[in-house]
Amino acid sequence: MIEPDASRAPNRLTATEAAALISAGRLSPSALVQSCLDRIAMRERAVRAWANIDPAAAMDQARGRDAAASSGPLHGIPVAVKDVIDVAGSPTGMGSPIYDGYSPLADAACVATLRSAGAVILGKTVTAEFAGVSPGPTTHPAAPNRTPGGSSSGSAAAVADHMVPLALGTQTGGSIIRPAAFCGVVGFKPSFGTINRAGLKLAAESFDTIGMMARDVDDIALVWRVLAGADAAAPGALESPPRLLVFRSHHWNRAAPETVSAVAQTVRRLRDRGARIEELPVPDGFAELSKARVIINGYERARALAWELQHHAGQLSEAMLRVVNNGWTYSYGDYVAAVKVAQSWRARIADIVGAHDAILTAAVNGEAPVGFASTGDASFQEIWSLLHLPAITLPLATGPSGLPVGVQLVGRYLDDARLLQLAKWALDTCTPPSPFESTDTGSS
Amino acid sequence: MIEPDASRAPNRLTATEAAALISAGRLSPSALVQSCLDRIAMRERAVRAWANIDPAAAMDQARGRDAAASSGPLHGIPVAVKDVIDVAGSPTGMGSPIYDGYSPLADAACVATLRSAGAVILGKTVTAEFAGVSPGPTTHPAAPNRTPGGSSSGSAAAVADHMVPLALGTQTGGSIIRPAAFCGVVGFKPSFGTINRAGLKLAAESFDTIGMMARDVDDIALVWRVLAGADAAAPGALESPPRLLVFRSHHWNRAAPETVSAVAQTVRRLRDRGARIEELPVPDGFAELSKARVIINGYERARALAWELQHHAGQLSEAMLRVVNNGWTYSYGDYVAAVKVAQSWRARIADIVGAHDAILTAAVNGEAPVGFASTGDASFQEIWSLLHLPAITLPLATGPSGLPVGVQLVGRYLDDARLLQLAKWALDTCTPPSPFESTDTGSS
Repeated sequence: MIEPDASRAPNRLTATEAAALISAGRLSPSALVQSCLDRIAMRERAVRAWANIDPAAAMDQARGRDAAASSGPLHGIPVAVKDVIDVAGSPTGMGSPIYDGYSPLADAACVATLRSAGAVILGKTVTAEFAGVSPGPTTHPAAPNRTPGGSSSGSAAAVADHMVPLALGTQTGGSIIRPAAFCGVVGFKPSFGTINRAGLKLAAESFDTIGMMARDVDDIALVWRVLAGADAAAPGALESPPRLLVFRSHHWNRAAPETVSAVAQTVRRLRDRGARIEELPVPDGFAELSKARVIINGYERARALAWELQHHAGQLSEAMLRVVNNGWTYSYGDYVAAVKVAQSWRARIADIVGAHDAILTAAVNGEAPVGFASTGDASFQEIWSLLHLPAITLPLATGPSGLPVGVQLVGRYLDDARLLQLAKWALDTCTPPSPFESTDTGSS
Repeated sequence: MIEPDASRAPNRLTATEAAALISAGRLSPSALVQSCLDRIAMRERAVRAWANIDPAAAMDQARGRDAAASSGPLHGIPVAVKDVIDVAGSPTGMGSPIYDGYSPLADAACVATLRSAGAVILGKTVTAEFAGVSPGPTTHPAAPNRTPGGSSSGSAAAVADHMVPLALGTQTGGSIIRPAAFCGVVGFKPSFGTINRAGLKLAAESFDTIGMMARDVDDIALVWRVLAGADAAAPGALESPPRLLVFRSHHWNRAAPETVSAVAQTVRRLRDRGARIEELPVPDGFAELSKARVIINGYERARALAWELQHHAGQLSEAMLRVVNNGWTYSYGDYVAAVKVAQSWRARIADIVGAHDAILTAAVNGEAPVGFASTGDASFQEIWSLLHLPAITLPLATGPSGLPVGVQLVGRYLDDARLLQLAKWALDTCTPPSPFESTDTGSS
């Protein structure tokens, strides 16, 4: 482990570093939280990552941690919470004016579990409307004229901008992996069903998954172990070189040169470090998954927003109205057929991956796009959400504008610990590429 | 279809009958709702089925339906909602003092969908604490010294007592099938995942399923079609005799004579009407499902109630505290292993059932037990919840005290329409047995 550098501003520490300093009595929770609040005060006008933050309440929590014995592995560590996840007594706006002033009675299960482990809930981060496609006000921390991605826009931007070391997000299509990849942080979507969803506003419940963002894989593992109750310690070294499948999906025509290059480059680097990497061709019929996803997503989102449509249709965005109205056109028969397609591919992908540790693939189609009309293209994330597989994006490359381009590792279902171990190895192995390298579009 | 008898008190009509009369202009929604409210006023002191009911608000909804053109297949039909499901602006108590005075902003997805189809939300029915094991005040409508079963206690009792024709319930272990079977109504737990759960207080999210109760299979099908968006008309006649598997589970030693008899009798009757019925022996290793269920249930319930445990442990029942504290002892590894057991059996049961239409088995271990210490034994319901299969209980037999004993049909996953068709045929085929027959304990 790298010895934490106490001379760095606390807001720049990773959660793992900060926890070690707090544990050693060399950093107080309130100094850490104050440092994050200072960063937010300086940068929030530009980044707009926060839907709601109450500095006094955050400092109250932090001072409570100062005074107390360690309450767990996150003692005194600030965490941001995406604004579709309930925090007791705190405005929870779902990215929609319909929920203006709404304040839940109880913490969501994941928030309460973080508090039990000692976390300070710093505030709520901006979400696209109902974790969908209609963006909030957040900008890309490194490029104010670009989207940070979404729907977990504020979580990714806040972590990337050193406002907070850890954030919770959710992914239904690509809502963790995409903004994390655009903003240059680590984003992790665990295996479906493993992080409790009580207190989450459901979007499409067959896919909705709570996950996390950080600037380091160790931090992801730290908060994942708290939420999942994994007994393991931090990810250890790999015992043997990993076996990977590199996958250029049925949407590969959407990959920008920087994405093509990022994948090729990562393959070369990991091979140089001993990884055995084979090509996984697009399986026959794989594209039917994209169609099934549209149906399941629409059918479920329409129902999940039935009350909002009935009573507040005028406050839904046009984009959401299209999704919801389209969702109501699917019959139960359409839905059941799509669910069966999804389930059969969940079994089939397990056979395809077999004994390989993970699939290595693109996280995003390129750098974050200019403008705020959309939060970007979900094509390279959404299939893994549908397949329920754990997925992580690593900031391994940059594009022509010097902005981050993530590379995605997709693990075996319920083998999240192995994926995190592999991700740590991959991130440690691959030093960030130079801008020159990043324009290399050659294949492996 | 039976011609509705307009001379019967409206509260005694099935929903299907009432809807036909309303559609024909022979019954008004407000007359129907008033009749239900009158029944409640007369009987509620004894039955205590309702957690919260506002007669004036219910009549306001009904009069709105009187004045309006038909808004859908449930136009003017009163529905009760289990008190773990959000109803906008209505107290939603979760069967726990922790939620005293809690009033959600929005309707749950299922409630909003019922309203779109014209339903009148009559009120909230009593649930065991957080849809668990600690009973509310409801009594058995036909035996005031007995439990009505649970956790959907009020829903079953209200429907059985002719207070309302339809009720929503939820099942995590046996919380729809058991109270419905004890109270002598039809209870239906659809295939897992098909009825949207937005706005439901989660208990154990791998199992939680919203379902319904009524006094007739047609009524179940009516409300199911609304919630699921199924295109089909009411269940038609079977084209050919059904193929069934009769299953006496690994818990058969818990079956009271009336349950043994109910199953044997139903097998004989359905065979007499042409059903082909084979015995399904308990598959090797089947009992491991019971162990997996305890782990998944505990792990998930503990997390879902993390906030309640942190802030209001003193207001949780001892029984719930045991479940939650025990749930926190399971590791992620325990949980993942149990999830894998459950998933492998979901695939295996599909192979076992094969082309058979359904499994015929006990719904409950006997008549509703005397007393209120528990809501009864979940052994004969919970495995089907874990396996995600659609299940329905039919009031086909009675026990030594003349009280109902349900018989359960378990369908193929996502083939709910076929199960409802089969259930209608079975209920029409089997006239209620005489008390003499019900003591017959012979096997088939």
